[in-house]
Amino acid sequence: MFGVTILGNNSALPAYDRHPTSQVVTIHDQLILIDCGEGTQMQMARYKIRRSKINHILISHLHGDHYFGLMGLITSMGLLGREHDLHIYGPEHLQDIIALQLKVADTQLPFPLHIHAIKEPGLLVNYPRFTIECFPTYHRVPCWGFIIREKKKPRKIYREKVLEYKIPAVFYEKLKLGEDYTTKTGEVIKNEWLTLPNSEGKSYAYCADTIKDSRVATATTNVTLMYHETTYLKDLAERAANRYHSTTVQAAEIAKEANVKRLAIGHFSSKYEKLDAFLQEAKTIFPSSELAVEGVTFVL
Amino acid sequence: MFGVTILGNNSALPAYDRHPTSQVVTIHDQLILIDCGEGTQMQMARYKIRRSKINHILISHLHGDHYFGLMGLITSMGLLGREHDLHIYGPEHLQDIIALQLKVADTQLPFPLHIHAIKEPGLLVNYPRFTIECFPTYHRVPCWGFIIREKKKPRKIYREKVLEYKIPAVFYEKLKLGEDYTTKTGEVIKNEWLTLPNSEGKSYAYCADTIKDSRVATATTNVTLMYHETTYLKDLAERAANRYHSTTVQAAEIAKEANVKRLAIGHFSSKYEKLDAFLQEAKTIFPSSELAVEGVTFVL
Repeated sequence: MFGVTILGNNSALPAYDRHPTSQVVTIHDQLILIDCGEGTQMQMARYKIRRSKINHILISHLHGDHYFGLMGLITSMGLLGREHDLHIYGPEHLQDIIALQLKVADTQLPFPLHIHAIKEPGLLVNYPRFTIECFPTYHRVPCWGFIIREKKKPRKIYREKVLEYKIPAVFYEKLKLGEDYTTKTGEVIKNEWLTLPNSEGKSYAYCADTIKDSRVATATTNVTLMYHETTYLKDLAERAANRYHSTTVQAAEIAKEANVKRLAIGHFSSKYEKLDAFLQEAKTIFPSSELAVEGVTFVL
Repeated sequence: MFGVTILGNNSALPAYDRHPTSQVVTIHDQLILIDCGEGTQMQMARYKIRRSKINHILISHLHGDHYFGLMGLITSMGLLGREHDLHIYGPEHLQDIIALQLKVADTQLPFPLHIHAIKEPGLLVNYPRFTIECFPTYHRVPCWGFIIREKKKPRKIYREKVLEYKIPAVFYEKLKLGEDYTTKTGEVIKNEWLTLPNSEGKSYAYCADTIKDSRVATATTNVTLMYHETTYLKDLAERAANRYHSTTVQAAEIAKEANVKRLAIGHFSSKYEKLDAFLQEAKTIFPSSELAVEGVTFVL
């Protein structure tokens, strides 16, 4: 399973029972939390997200609607007796903010908390089955987007052929990783004769708060699912630019430029009660657009 | 109107749709917010509390369940265009925490924010119609309780008598404040002949997180309504003491010792789903006990 569950889809002001930004990525048996606006822990309870499964938290930037729920979540994890490591990746000053608040509360967390300051684009996490990368987005304060990539899956054994060529079973694992087989007499049997390709690894790009910028498309080329912020409808392009945010049309253009398969849009301004127009406008440019509705899981 | 509306009544971990501590005191045309756990701004929306009417916020101590909603509230007030002064009273380091988070977000609030560090017990605010005092409670970190007192109401003019004694109408305001009237011939007409007493001012004491301590009763003697924490039922007195919290029976004993009129209990541990036993146990000691249920307003 590789999926993204939306916990909060609103911009700065909570409104119409929409919450500030937070998403949970499920990849195999792990959960990765992306951003953590106020009330995220309550949203997790609502949508039955298992906090103990979260080992990585990614914070895009230090505007409150993206991280004011973090201290509450960390504190609750401690109170619930978590003992295993928690890794947080975020902008430089996050460490100071967390340390200060733990100190004044005289809180000793029962688990190791690792806070990693993001200083440059690149690989943050390299796990056996997935990677997490970051790339800059273009906002009023330093801001990062994230890409979670499933690693390419191993090839599948072509049962009839391995029997025909009498390949020893102990070599099967190497076949899956793409190796050719060499017989005792020195004959090379090509891997592609013996195996079948498996599906490509899928990928998710979270394009946090950002003004429309083609460099975001370049960084996220060909991902399976892109989330791009759409704070405003297209008629407010000027306001969006002034505030380093994007419109529906701009997000859809970036998705198109990046050649992604699907686009999820969110971070809606609290000035909008209904969201239909967001979807409608995005689809005129990029038909595979969807609304990042709270509680919905996008399965990749 | 003098009343207390409960926005959150749970201790550290949010549970069973109960929220971390927050209360709003309405006194005449002003709102005073006491503590501001995560999600307080959402609870305000739910219970139709007008944020713009809040001019004073009192933070008892720097455990997250009492203040992690503060940054979100302040930021939202700014986004909503607040322009008038906001006064926050709280422990020493609150100023640093707020300043750091505003700085990293590059936020310029459109209203004057005054953060007052509480250093000693006494008067915090002296308004024409009420005062706010603070007193220490006894918790694991420095912690303050608060008393909001309506000022004694002016005396009422005794219509028949002022006519009988021919008191000039311009002197009525002074009569209300208790002054005697002296005639041109030097004769003193006693205030109590000319006026009737009005009702006494009412008072509310918020006894924040605390271990059971008689000094809390001394500080809050004779208040109209006391809120006292009851994190645990009486059978967990040892755990309560270890964690600097109180049980139902202890809270009720303090209310009795302080000779208050009514007691509201809250700050329930998330280990309890049902609250009936809290009320039952408190009432065995102090019959005028009530549960601080979220959304309920205690009218003084």
